[in-house]
Amino acid sequence: MVPDLQDLRAALVAALGAERLSDDPADLAYYGADRCRGGWPVQPSLVVFPRSPADVQAVVRACAAHGVPVVPSGGRTGLAGAATATRGEVVLSLERMYQILEVDPAARTLRCEAGATLQAVQDAAAAAGLLYPVDYAAKGSAQIGGSLATNAGGVKVLRYGLTRDWVLGLKVVLASGELLVLGGALVKNNTGYDLRQLFIGSEGTLGVIVEVTLKLARPPADSLVALCAVPSDAAVLALFARLRRSSLTLSAFEFLDHGCLNHVLAHRRGDLPFSRPAARYVLVEVEVPVPGAAALEHTRDELGACLAEADDAGELGDAVLAATQAQARALWAYREDISESLHRHTPHKADIALPVARVAEFLAAWRPLVAERLPGIEALCFGHVGDGNLHLNLLRPADEGLSAFLDRVHAFDDELYALVQAHDGSISAEHGVGLLKRDHLHYSRNATEVALMRGIKAVLDPAGLLNPGKIF
Amino acid sequence: MVPDLQDLRAALVAALGAERLSDDPADLAYYGADRCRGGWPVQPSLVVFPRSPADVQAVVRACAAHGVPVVPSGGRTGLAGAATATRGEVVLSLERMYQILEVDPAARTLRCEAGATLQAVQDAAAAAGLLYPVDYAAKGSAQIGGSLATNAGGVKVLRYGLTRDWVLGLKVVLASGELLVLGGALVKNNTGYDLRQLFIGSEGTLGVIVEVTLKLARPPADSLVALCAVPSDAAVLALFARLRRSSLTLSAFEFLDHGCLNHVLAHRRGDLPFSRPAARYVLVEVEVPVPGAAALEHTRDELGACLAEADDAGELGDAVLAATQAQARALWAYREDISESLHRHTPHKADIALPVARVAEFLAAWRPLVAERLPGIEALCFGHVGDGNLHLNLLRPADEGLSAFLDRVHAFDDELYALVQAHDGSISAEHGVGLLKRDHLHYSRNATEVALMRGIKAVLDPAGLLNPGKIF
Repeated sequence: MVPDLQDLRAALVAALGAERLSDDPADLAYYGADRCRGGWPVQPSLVVFPRSPADVQAVVRACAAHGVPVVPSGGRTGLAGAATATRGEVVLSLERMYQILEVDPAARTLRCEAGATLQAVQDAAAAAGLLYPVDYAAKGSAQIGGSLATNAGGVKVLRYGLTRDWVLGLKVVLASGELLVLGGALVKNNTGYDLRQLFIGSEGTLGVIVEVTLKLARPPADSLVALCAVPSDAAVLALFARLRRSSLTLSAFEFLDHGCLNHVLAHRRGDLPFSRPAARYVLVEVEVPVPGAAALEHTRDELGACLAEADDAGELGDAVLAATQAQARALWAYREDISESLHRHTPHKADIALPVARVAEFLAAWRPLVAERLPGIEALCFGHVGDGNLHLNLLRPADEGLSAFLDRVHAFDDELYALVQAHDGSISAEHGVGLLKRDHLHYSRNATEVALMRGIKAVLDPAGLLNPGKIF
Repeated sequence: MVPDLQDLRAALVAALGAERLSDDPADLAYYGADRCRGGWPVQPSLVVFPRSPADVQAVVRACAAHGVPVVPSGGRTGLAGAATATRGEVVLSLERMYQILEVDPAARTLRCEAGATLQAVQDAAAAAGLLYPVDYAAKGSAQIGGSLATNAGGVKVLRYGLTRDWVLGLKVVLASGELLVLGGALVKNNTGYDLRQLFIGSEGTLGVIVEVTLKLARPPADSLVALCAVPSDAAVLALFARLRRSSLTLSAFEFLDHGCLNHVLAHRRGDLPFSRPAARYVLVEVEVPVPGAAALEHTRDELGACLAEADDAGELGDAVLAATQAQARALWAYREDISESLHRHTPHKADIALPVARVAEFLAAWRPLVAERLPGIEALCFGHVGDGNLHLNLLRPADEGLSAFLDRVHAFDDELYALVQAHDGSISAEHGVGLLKRDHLHYSRNATEVALMRGIKAVLDPAGLLNPGKIF
């Protein structure tokens, strides 16, 4: 350990106590990286576990005084390397700051520490008869602070929007060590620039979020789930437009191609839920707006009529409508099990967004391009097509070594992102930029935008203390 | 006209044509101010009327080259002086850029030029069977660009949120003259800092918004309106909490005190809608979630049951439930006619926000404070109490001259804002800061926040070209 770091360690022990600090190699490896493995080193100097905003301020001030950068660290479920320490940083873990502080049913708000998991937030909301509607698979580990720092999306964006839409207030420790209190119980506060918005989605580069006030929604009375077999990408979009024109309240419209379903069936040794395979599948969820059997029946009839019209129009091959909540969960599992089913093929993932209207056109270009440039590599697509958000997966052939595979797919990234750019898309729909897409950022943000981002970074963190090297 | 300005005028004539430029004193007075009269001079040098983003770029570049600042100008319905030119600025009016460019029913988006009125946007959405839900009284004149620049609120915030929640994309001309395209058709785009958010609510100080892409909602099937007579501020909050706990979808919860209703009745020579007066009134609107007579009846029964329970609990003196749309409009008019009814008393207004839970406590302190400090001045309160947003009005006594009145009420502002601050409130809920509240900004934003705002302003507009002197 270099002398500077020994001084910093002493300062941190003095501030937090020795038990709130670790340089155990196993801890450094565990807390030093998120779920993205990109070939960069994982090498933090220390991990600290503050228990209060004042602790976080002390950590940031000590690191600033010693010139050692800080990586704010939540549940580390990110997929872009934004929570990975590669250059001797101090990892500031929020995991000991997990309290739900207050739920106000009349105001429909929840206030909690940044280290509370998404699951804990959802559970506390549900206990008050309310809903925190941002939802994604990693919710048991993902922390709300990280969810804000990445402006997390998930499976209900179509109905409820992104994390940004649910943030009323936050407390954030700046690079100066100062604690800023932004918003909170106020719904309205038009007094100059809304600084909250800067921290949301900034991937820990502008401040450390330590407390959050969230809006909550009223949960729907009930929901209905259908799995649809669809002949083509174009039919998927036609079905989406049809459902949006109807009076149904669509809460999910999730896409998976035939390859994805095949891998799920192989993984769990299951059978096709239809009598014959289709090219594409869509999981549809609609909300039942009011309680009671009549409303449920009415929504079921409406959904049935809508799917029958889609069938007449050639948009539908087949459809299964869940009759019970257990069946609904089973249909959702075809979508939710994809990532796990693909895991053993070490997929190279891209998380892109497109204007919804251009999804089919993009896929019609992407599939043959992969076939031509990456022979032997299976290309799969699933995602939140109602938001224009596709998760593209390139699978490693069984007979190809990992590094040879990564060389091939990384070499293809530029072509992919150029294709995304040509379709007015974004190279990161919801996972963020982090380390993974930093060198590709120019496909989505021009030089002026990057210069403005750097200027803003310099205003908030002139010494580059917070999560340096991420985003740009 | 000073030589510099003659050069600028020549440059603007060359860029836009002479007919797109005016220095007629009547135009300067008309386009040089918004609805806020604060004692400052109204003295722009010129008014220009660009017809395209390229025109706006040319104006900004010419003004930058000649060192003459620019005031971006929409419908000038603002109430804080943010669109008023006091120092020889060029007023850049967006009124000739009013086209609705595109409505996409499947994506539920609308794209338009910044000078389109809120009414035009609402009408274009309605023509596609959709709803742009931000709504306020000045919609016939207010332009969507100004609506974004002030993050406008209005009467449906409780249900649909602020303008910020409905912005998907914008095109903005920077102080450098560069056109930035931010977002648009993409729902998701997590690629670094969300620069869109900076421009929303920045009151024209960071860029000139020239085009907007908005999200649209599906309109409710129907709605029900009730006017409630309520015995006290505390009962207003209890009634609000009761309605929020119910399964009703509350779309408005508007408050008016007895004084407001009296002025409305005097103005239109009408009668009290109840058999006897109450201390407070609340206009309640709930949505009928699905079409059909059964759903309407069900919602009516639910609302009736909820109000009956409120009556039993002592929260309600009386209530009138509209049976027809005409009756609903008539009930809304009691709320909507307040501002016009008060106009002849030249009210001094404050637009404040509080945590909803602290509204009654604040009013219990504010009313006696006004009575003590401002003898003879009638104090009225109405507003969007479901958002914690109160519009406080101090009326000029008939026998008091305007300037004596203004001296008294302006001297009281600091006490008012200190009281707001002590209740964790904001000195501007929705009207913004502009010139009017600039000197009071410190009651809502601390020195660090103001320093960060100034830093951000310097990044985007280093020469202070855009709307100088507004906000801070």
